[in-house]
Amino acid sequence: MSAKGRLFIVSAPSGAGKTSLVKALLERMEGIQVSVSHTTRAQRPGEVDGVNYNFVDKAEFKAMIEQNAFLEHAEVFGNYYGTSEAWVRAQMDQGVDVILEIDWQGGQQVRRLMPEAVGIFILPPSKAALMERLSNRGQDSEEVIAKRMAQSESEVSHYVEYDFIIINDEFTTALDEMASVIIADRVRIDRQREQHQGLLKDLLSGHSA
Amino acid sequence: MSAKGRLFIVSAPSGAGKTSLVKALLERMEGIQVSVSHTTRAQRPGEVDGVNYNFVDKAEFKAMIEQNAFLEHAEVFGNYYGTSEAWVRAQMDQGVDVILEIDWQGGQQVRRLMPEAVGIFILPPSKAALMERLSNRGQDSEEVIAKRMAQSESEVSHYVEYDFIIINDEFTTALDEMASVIIADRVRIDRQREQHQGLLKDLLSGHSA
Repeated sequence: MSAKGRLFIVSAPSGAGKTSLVKALLERMEGIQVSVSHTTRAQRPGEVDGVNYNFVDKAEFKAMIEQNAFLEHAEVFGNYYGTSEAWVRAQMDQGVDVILEIDWQGGQQVRRLMPEAVGIFILPPSKAALMERLSNRGQDSEEVIAKRMAQSESEVSHYVEYDFIIINDEFTTALDEMASVIIADRVRIDRQREQHQGLLKDLLSGHSA
Repeated sequence: MSAKGRLFIVSAPSGAGKTSLVKALLERMEGIQVSVSHTTRAQRPGEVDGVNYNFVDKAEFKAMIEQNAFLEHAEVFGNYYGTSEAWVRAQMDQGVDVILEIDWQGGQQVRRLMPEAVGIFILPPSKAALMERLSNRGQDSEEVIAKRMAQSESEVSHYVEYDFIIINDEFTTALDEMASVIIADRVRIDRQREQHQGLLKDLLSGHSA
């Protein structure tokens, strides 16, 4: 029997490089999937329904809330985002690790339902670097950038709720650290006991007491 | 201020490949040291005093026990082995991680004094592989090999006392897993908070409430 996968909650202030890190991590590692959220926000050019997001209208989203279909859901800038519990649990049951890219409010909701989830918080190397990254992104309006800067410090203050803190200074170092957190989790005793029941039985076959 | 190093307790049945894994790990990683034990056993050809072991006579060893100088000590096959607490704590205070290669009895002694130590247990991929490795080692007598085989199952039964289990089937995979456990530990929140006090202060400088 294969061990169940783990749920990793990944949060960061906007501009810390969370999305790039997660993308590179998924390209490098096997047996790990990023959760595909449901959202009511407009589909952007290049985004694929079912891959980047599951795009739904507000009526559909509200029906799912009523059915308790979400592990977490939130309203951000007037749009709804949510994570299907059924999808996440199906991945984990197949032994696949799942990454949830969410903010601290979402993280708190998920931890209440899955206290065994592992939290990873990503930080920029300095406040100056964060400001520079937010200004250079270029795909959002001034207003959105200003909102994000204000939210950034509030978001950072929640780092204490996470198990691991990764500083995204040198990208490859941060990526190695993130991969190490995933690999180390896979060799934790609880997962290894489930994964290697046969081996443990073999090694202890002559042992009494 | 640099974060303190961590103490890693590494145990395994004889023949699981613990010493080779630790050696390769130290060649690959920085900021990590293996603990140099004190011992009363005879110096073997090629061994260097102060590098492989600190060779002392029984009178010296017993004086150190009376001074509570050891984090753990044990008698194995008529010889004494012990780990100097002062040496280990000096390394950790400098931010260096320390690996203690010891058996489960030693591991229990150390955990009582340092409950924050992280335990790693290494297992062979099968009982047959363990037997083959013990027979092929070639530097010990038949009697010693027989004793080790008998002790092996007893040692394996203590894997439950460790935090991480590494199966040494493919050497490079086991090595990657061991390195990941060390790296992941370095980005745990308690160590990162200590290591990056200045950054956290910078990022939260405008935040109130």
